[in-house]
Amino acid sequence: MQFIPANPAFEARVRDSFARQTAMGFIGARLAEVTPGRCTIELPARAELGQQHGFVHGGIVGMIADSAGGYAAFSLMPADVSILTVEFKINLLAPARGQLMVAVGTVVKPGRTLSITRAEVFAHDNGREMLIATMQQTLMAMQGMADERT
Amino acid sequence: MQFIPANPAFEARVRDSFARQTAMGFIGARLAEVTPGRCTIELPARAELGQQHGFVHGGIVGMIADSAGGYAAFSLMPADVSILTVEFKINLLAPARGQLMVAVGTVVKPGRTLSITRAEVFAHDNGREMLIATMQQTLMAMQGMADERT
Amino acid sequence: MQFIPANPAFEARVRDSFARQTAMGFIGARLAEVTPGRCTIELPARAELGQQHGFVHGGIVGMIADSAGGYAAFSLMPADVSILTVEFKINLLAPARGQLMVAVGTVVKPGRTLSITRAEVFAHDNGREMLIATMQQTLMAMQGMADERT
Amino acid sequence: MQFIPANPAFEARVRDSFARQTAMGFIGARLAEVTPGRCTIELPARAELGQQHGFVHGGIVGMIADSAGGYAAFSLMPADVSILTVEFKINLLAPARGQLMVAVGTVVKPGRTLSITRAEVFAHDNGREMLIATMQQTLMAMQGMADERT
Repeated sequence: MQFIPANPAFEARVRDSFARQTAMGFIGARLAEVTPGRCTIELPARAELGQQHGFVHGGIVGMIADSAGGYAAFSLMPADVSILTVEFKINLLAPARGQLMVAVGTVVKPGRTLSITRAEVFAHDNGREMLIATMQQTLMAMQGMADERT
Repeated sequence: MQFIPANPAFEARVRDSFARQTAMGFIGARLAEVTPGRCTIELPARAELGQQHGFVHGGIVGMIADSAGGYAAFSLMPADVSILTVEFKINLLAPARGQLMVAVGTVVKPGRTLSITRAEVFAHDNGREMLIATMQQTLMAMQGMADERT
Repeated sequence: MQFIPANPAFEARVRDSFARQTAMGFIGARLAEVTPGRCTIELPARAELGQQHGFVHGGIVGMIADSAGGYAAFSLMPADVSILTVEFKINLLAPARGQLMVAVGTVVKPGRTLSITRAEVFAHDNGREMLIATMQQTLMAMQGMADERT
Repeated sequence: MQFIPANPAFEARVRDSFARQTAMGFIGARLAEVTPGRCTIELPARAELGQQHGFVHGGIVGMIADSAGGYAAFSLMPADVSILTVEFKINLLAPARGQLMVAVGTVVKPGRTLSITRAEVFAHDNGREMLIATMQQTLMAMQGMADERT
């Protein structure tokens, strides 16, 4: 599907917002690519992010999926609209084993109030890519809400 | 509901497993209480865990909800069974505003293969408690799988 | 939790809306009880509602859970507001075996735009009650939208 | 993705099982197409299937999505394995307006114990096709369980 962003400066706006998410920086996630209705977030695996078997924690996988879906939706929003996650549902398909986790969020249905997105998370393990999670998400646009702390 | 844990040493086993989840330590979460079929995780808010408005990131809220539900289920498992999150769905009901986030996971239906849990997350903000998230989760027991990295 | 309905005539409004849902009548579901923020729907099991093993179809269980949650939220709405299901997630915990299925929907968080509910479905089988499904749901209020076909 | 069915007679097995789901016949759903890991179910709209505004009830949309996803997974199973829905999550994207609803289920990840699927539901309204729902689902294989009432 082809989306037309309401704000021509969408990429800068997404990158500014991502930079304000201290949690993304804290876990070491970086915003790789933003196009209208699509956002890719990369996370290098690190020992600090493990679950009990040493793979990346499923909650961390959920974090980057949630953000990838959220910024996919945000990329289509007008300049005076902020966005909040209403809910997300994620299936963890395989252990997050590998050196790099990549979450790709895409808009399924944009809306003035609600947007529905999906995200897939892939683990890159020694040159092999594997789908490890799939997410479905609902977001709400907040009219006239600044995207920064006020 | 009253649950009988298959392993009398369930609390020590849960605490050992939690201690191996480096991601929990990294974000500063601590295991507050474990009883059969119920687990409480506390997370003090910190600037590093923020989303773009300065509240705790929804993905971080999801992390502690996922772990609280998972350890609630794990508390009922036999000593030779490990557990993995199959999927979870979380509604973020209000911004995670406050000094302390508390996730309370409870088992809805234990099972030999699959367990279903729920978690509620509460924000403590200057002495006021507010429900900020509710989660529903499916977990799978792995027979004969050690709970540590092998 | 105690809820105050915005419309004192909430019960009549819920019953009128339910009566317009031809699908509920078609499967034989009846609206048992409506109180502020809570709704109970009963469905006698019938041979026409089966899945391949002869139990009530999980999708039928989902239908009454969806409606019970939706009317729980609708019971709190002002008289000029209609409501639509945004999404629901249901865990089917056990086969729907028995003579009567009872879905109990309750509001978790009411809201001007979005409401979050939960529903539990119980099977009554020869005098024994069993929890067979648990649902989590998001609904959206539609301001100034009539609740009937226009 | 290309899937290899464990049972060469998968289509006949899916069609037999569908025929035993009395609920599908009751609402008028028909099994259109079955290929390995993919299943399409069609449902002509009828007055009996309505919600309060006269569109097809969201729970009915959920029913055909659940079945389409379930039979997509079932198409890959060995001949002695039955399948049960563990849970599904569905976003209703638009009113189910039109003459025909078409649910397309596809396998995201097959598994010996758990399979993950997705389904999209499209409404056909006077020659125009519209995506009205998207579902994510978890199913469990039951080894040695017949697919019929015993």
